[in-house]
Amino acid sequence: MLNGLDHIGIAVADLEQAVPLWLKITGGKLVHREIVASQKVEVAVIEIGSLHVELLRGVSDDSPIAKFIAARGAGIHHIALRSTAAQEELDRLKQTGVRLIDETVRTGAEDSRVGFIHPKSVEGVLLEVVEPGHK
Amino acid sequence: MLNGLDHIGIAVADLEQAVPLWLKITGGKLVHREIVASQKVEVAVIEIGSLHVELLRGVSDDSPIAKFIAARGAGIHHIALRSTAAQEELDRLKQTGVRLIDETVRTGAEDSRVGFIHPKSVEGVLLEVVEPGHK
Repeated sequence: MLNGLDHIGIAVADLEQAVPLWLKITGGKLVHREIVASQKVEVAVIEIGSLHVELLRGVSDDSPIAKFIAARGAGIHHIALRSTAAQEELDRLKQTGVRLIDETVRTGAEDSRVGFIHPKSVEGVLLEVVEPGHK
Repeated sequence: MLNGLDHIGIAVADLEQAVPLWLKITGGKLVHREIVASQKVEVAVIEIGSLHVELLRGVSDDSPIAKFIAARGAGIHHIALRSTAAQEELDRLKQTGVRLIDETVRTGAEDSRVGFIHPKSVEGVLLEVVEPGHK
């Protein structure tokens, strides 16, 4: 089951520019920063009230974020929905004929379990299923 | 001040296809449907836990949503942040040098007051400021 929003992911070219820009515009605060090697991204999390925005920079040219920016420019990249059981959720989606990028969960930021649904199955929207880490 | 997320806006070509697709994938429910004449869109709101996703269909070829789809395809269109005083927020942003699409609030869905920030000021992200309606 999907319980609501975990975060919104934004592709940015340069975190040193994007973080202060987002803080200025939204009045939010920077609450986390991490390199997620498995996804080849550096993440900066901006908290705006109860909303978490993940600013994402590709750490290599073959990172999905770098490819996205090369193809479409910086901008909104994905919507991450929260689940208490990400693998079960991916299994359920696959059974209903939804195309997945990840059929098996992998490790995301803050020790979460994550999997992406293919945008071809969601009319151009990249959705991520996130099971928060149990720290 | 911006207090968190109001909704995420998604540009779709056809609501009759997109609404059942989103309900199937997310397990959410359809909670509102409206034509917003001032923005030339038909809106269907999907509730997923505490998240509201607005599926947006342009009602004419010169609608911003129709132009977005023609240029980039269907997909995530904007992030709407909630404010208790949308006009004050737009004034604050303008004073700090942020480029606005709407310097004056206009009427959005469910009798809200809304204004858009120009994506050139947010590195390609279209942000909306929303003051919910006082019904």
